[in-house]
Amino acid sequence: MGVVLTLEDGKKPEAASIRALMELTRADMARVNELILSKAGSNVELIPQIANHLVSSGGKRLRPMITLASAQLFGYRGEGHIKLATSVEFMHTATLLHDDVVDESGMRRGRTTARMIWGNQASVLVGDFLLGQAFRMMVEVGSIEALDVLSGAACIIAEGEVMQLAAAKNLDTTEDDYLAVIRAKTAALFSAAAEVGPIVAGAGKAERAALKSYGTNLGLAFQLVDDALDYGGSTRDLGKNVGDDFREGKVTLPVLLASRRGSAEERDFWRAAIEKGETDDAALDKAIGLMTRTGAIADTVGRARHFGGIARDALAPLKSTPQKDALLEVIDFCISRVN
Amino acid sequence: MGVVLTLEDGKKPEAASIRALMELTRADMARVNELILSKAGSNVELIPQIANHLVSSGGKRLRPMITLASAQLFGYRGEGHIKLATSVEFMHTATLLHDDVVDESGMRRGRTTARMIWGNQASVLVGDFLLGQAFRMMVEVGSIEALDVLSGAACIIAEGEVMQLAAAKNLDTTEDDYLAVIRAKTAALFSAAAEVGPIVAGAGKAERAALKSYGTNLGLAFQLVDDALDYGGSTRDLGKNVGDDFREGKVTLPVLLASRRGSAEERDFWRAAIEKGETDDAALDKAIGLMTRTGAIADTVGRARHFGGIARDALAPLKSTPQKDALLEVIDFCISRVN
Repeated sequence: MGVVLTLEDGKKPEAASIRALMELTRADMARVNELILSKAGSNVELIPQIANHLVSSGGKRLRPMITLASAQLFGYRGEGHIKLATSVEFMHTATLLHDDVVDESGMRRGRTTARMIWGNQASVLVGDFLLGQAFRMMVEVGSIEALDVLSGAACIIAEGEVMQLAAAKNLDTTEDDYLAVIRAKTAALFSAAAEVGPIVAGAGKAERAALKSYGTNLGLAFQLVDDALDYGGSTRDLGKNVGDDFREGKVTLPVLLASRRGSAEERDFWRAAIEKGETDDAALDKAIGLMTRTGAIADTVGRARHFGGIARDALAPLKSTPQKDALLEVIDFCISRVN
Repeated sequence: MGVVLTLEDGKKPEAASIRALMELTRADMARVNELILSKAGSNVELIPQIANHLVSSGGKRLRPMITLASAQLFGYRGEGHIKLATSVEFMHTATLLHDDVVDESGMRRGRTTARMIWGNQASVLVGDFLLGQAFRMMVEVGSIEALDVLSGAACIIAEGEVMQLAAAKNLDTTEDDYLAVIRAKTAALFSAAAEVGPIVAGAGKAERAALKSYGTNLGLAFQLVDDALDYGGSTRDLGKNVGDDFREGKVTLPVLLASRRGSAEERDFWRAAIEKGETDDAALDKAIGLMTRTGAIADTVGRARHFGGIARDALAPLKSTPQKDALLEVIDFCISRVN
């Protein structure tokens, strides 16, 4: 799959980035950001406080940019994609708020989580509010098909989170179980974000299916790389600290592969770490050592490349446009984060 | 406002009940209950477990019955009201799940709460799932107007809950603040439940407005009576234990009135109870005594009667039908719970 290299004026080859995507969606994203601020507003003071904490937290806003680009890809000239992109970001933000409560997380993207500042209670309720606002905006757009895709995603995401909870700290989780979890909790929103573009643009069935497949597989690749990054890779991805997942005892693919491939003694180490919480710095060092030796990190990235390839092929039949090229580069960007 | 008395075959007058509403909606409710069970299903085991715990908990299902009756009221002959009624009940159930987490409640309707059995995490996520399913069903019905009303209600409910959280344990809350909270957290869903009936039936603007007003004011009366019941009244309303709100330090109207009308010394008592949690059985007895003496309970019920009267007048222009009579009797039933 390799990273796409861009040669400009004889300069050095550059790594894949989301710069093209950002350029193409810059004007639209300014309107999305405005809408985010206005729809996160409320006379109930606590709501904008918490919402602004999240809004200013420096996420890449990859999902709404995908919605915008995938609407542009089919020549959309209306206004609906702005609200749909904002809805997608709100669904994501609501999930983060509830996730942090469920995971009892103290940090997110290098910042103190809302629940540590305002409490679990406010995080649950403000998450509910943002989800409500997301649905309200979708309804304003008035496309039953887009509503169908996004409300379906909301269910699947919640199901995925419950699945993850049920599989928590269980080292007998199979790779298939794990893929089912990330397909639901991460890939479903990427999938919906990409599919509502052609929907709002009135594109055909094949185009919808292409973008849906692109989003799903990009989401899987994105999550796998995220899981690998927790055990090293570059530190380019700001806000993610090496070992966060390990200290929370999260069962991710690098852990599953290393544990499955290890000796009986090594499996005891993994059980102590994940099931009993023996996750100090020495244990983290050992974990990274075992993952490197067993090829667990490299193979997690390999799986991500596999899904990245499917995402790329999903867009292959579409004619070349700057939007298509930008969406393709996102695949390489996601994977190159770890190289 | 008095209780409506029914004289049948010379028998004794009967108290107002929801029997007429139950009769009229019996066939439809059987389908709603079926849909509840099927839509609470999931391959993720924990979801039907928790959903069934709630479904079997013996709630009256007042809200979906109101949706069904208000669709029948306008001669609706389609299928959409079944899904809308189920959505309304799921929104309510999701709110209860999240509420119990926020309030740290151990009991609900006389049973152990889901969060005590499966943990806060599962309660948050299964609530999200049910909310997602609710939206999915509304989308299937395909009425943008119904979606607009219900997604609006979802936002308002969440806003109300956040308001309540911000006002928690604050005895300086005014009656207006308190009414704003219950208007959002309780009345908004009753209002939406009643309004989607005429919407799906294609009734006119005035009919929609009438049912919306009926639902809003019924919801206010319902919540005020609920708050009064916590400090006594009859025990006919099963599952609500006297003193639950008091022990949780909830600021409800009976507390606000008793505290505002009390002496300086009595206000100290209320501060100790609500703000510092001094709420043992002796304190509860004293609280009920003070509320009785200051007329706080009776006047809370008086406020409920006021809103009940508005709900009644909202339906006045509509021609008399069994559905209208049943909806009117619900008002008296709600208020008579406390008599």
